[in-house]
Amino acid sequence: MENNLAALDSIAIVLVNPQFPGNIGATARALKTMGLSRLILVGPKAFPHREATWRATNAQDVLESAIVVDDLQAAIADFEWVIGTSSRARSLPWPTMSVADFANMWSSESTPQKTAIIFGREDSGLSNEALQMCHHHIVIPTNPDYASLNLASAVQIICYELFKTCELKPKQFEASKTLLDEPATIQEVQGFLSHLERTMLEIEFYNPKNPGRLLSRVQRLFMRAKLDKMEVNILRGILKQVHHKIRGES
Amino acid sequence: MENNLAALDSIAIVLVNPQFPGNIGATARALKTMGLSRLILVGPKAFPHREATWRATNAQDVLESAIVVDDLQAAIADFEWVIGTSSRARSLPWPTMSVADFANMWSSESTPQKTAIIFGREDSGLSNEALQMCHHHIVIPTNPDYASLNLASAVQIICYELFKTCELKPKQFEASKTLLDEPATIQEVQGFLSHLERTMLEIEFYNPKNPGRLLSRVQRLFMRAKLDKMEVNILRGILKQVHHKIRGES
Repeated sequence: MENNLAALDSIAIVLVNPQFPGNIGATARALKTMGLSRLILVGPKAFPHREATWRATNAQDVLESAIVVDDLQAAIADFEWVIGTSSRARSLPWPTMSVADFANMWSSESTPQKTAIIFGREDSGLSNEALQMCHHHIVIPTNPDYASLNLASAVQIICYELFKTCELKPKQFEASKTLLDEPATIQEVQGFLSHLERTMLEIEFYNPKNPGRLLSRVQRLFMRAKLDKMEVNILRGILKQVHHKIRGES
Repeated sequence: MENNLAALDSIAIVLVNPQFPGNIGATARALKTMGLSRLILVGPKAFPHREATWRATNAQDVLESAIVVDDLQAAIADFEWVIGTSSRARSLPWPTMSVADFANMWSSESTPQKTAIIFGREDSGLSNEALQMCHHHIVIPTNPDYASLNLASAVQIICYELFKTCELKPKQFEASKTLLDEPATIQEVQGFLSHLERTMLEIEFYNPKNPGRLLSRVQRLFMRAKLDKMEVNILRGILKQVHHKIRGES
């Protein structure tokens, strides 16, 4: 199964009148970490700027290829889908969805739509005029008492949700495959548990006539841990050595 | 339907040796936008600092109530669940999951676990020693060619995923029944692991001059099992009794 990261090239992030150059740099970095590369700046207060360069770290390529335009209309003219971001409820109702729902909708299109996702300035967000140019509005769920997401953080979350929809599951399976050695069979685990029980008897840790819930607790613990073969070997090695020591063997 | 945002109080974000005060401020803001408030700083390079104050904007309360400690051990001693964040594959594989899967797992516990999520320093991430104190490692899916997430951005994404599970799946915490006794704290688990190590030495099961990966494997197994208090007591009881028997005591 292949991933679909190339689809992310169809998305541009548009910052309208960003006031802090640091946010432009941090936005470039956010894009690149999530496989996006197209940044459009509409009337930035200061750009280029050393603060933007510093915050972009190794995403200078995104910063250098950023397109700077004077007005939003020019920025979005060629896009097929324009998405506005907003943290506030507006007087004018608009089709609104969560970031995650939007990412799912975007990725379920048969071909990637040329999509512009636009963000307003740090202090005031998008104007009503800008929001009315959008097909959809998306909101990032936030603390109802403090919704003040940093601009680059908002970009980061949206790009992350988009990236997730393109990055299919196979990587995860690979990760967990290397996680453990070959799993122990149930027979091997039971062999260890019997061994442990004999050791517990030998060291007089429990009274077989009145075991209480002790054995079942120990069993539950090791079943839950899903032992691998190597772990069973280590644990049985310990028990064997305990037995030798008690018998005074070396 | 009610949400379950109060559960987020059970989570602390721990920054280990953060080098840039701006990241501390941005992290405080990231927490607050997602309904979290507990920030722990382990040996920050500079704190308090005007750059942190500036980047925190209106999350000064989170910044001011941040706890500063000297070492990670002290920071996590009282937590029931310790989660490490890592972008790199490590030599010793550890139970690893995506942020989203972790958030779902966290929110499906019957009661919110006292959880510490730890982040390493900007340039080097968490040490292997720190990662081995963790029950689980979580990874944020990123561009395979550029995985360099800013520290506060990584915090932002993780808090966002946690917030979503509380906002969208309010019933989950109530849903599942309590399977285990009260979870052991990390200090209790580490106490058991030290005890086990002493026992392994005493029975000459391993050579401390050449431990290989034995200790790490045993540690990983018991961290993965997520012991409860009763289990720690049982396991330590077994070790104590082994000691008595070897010494010929009854």
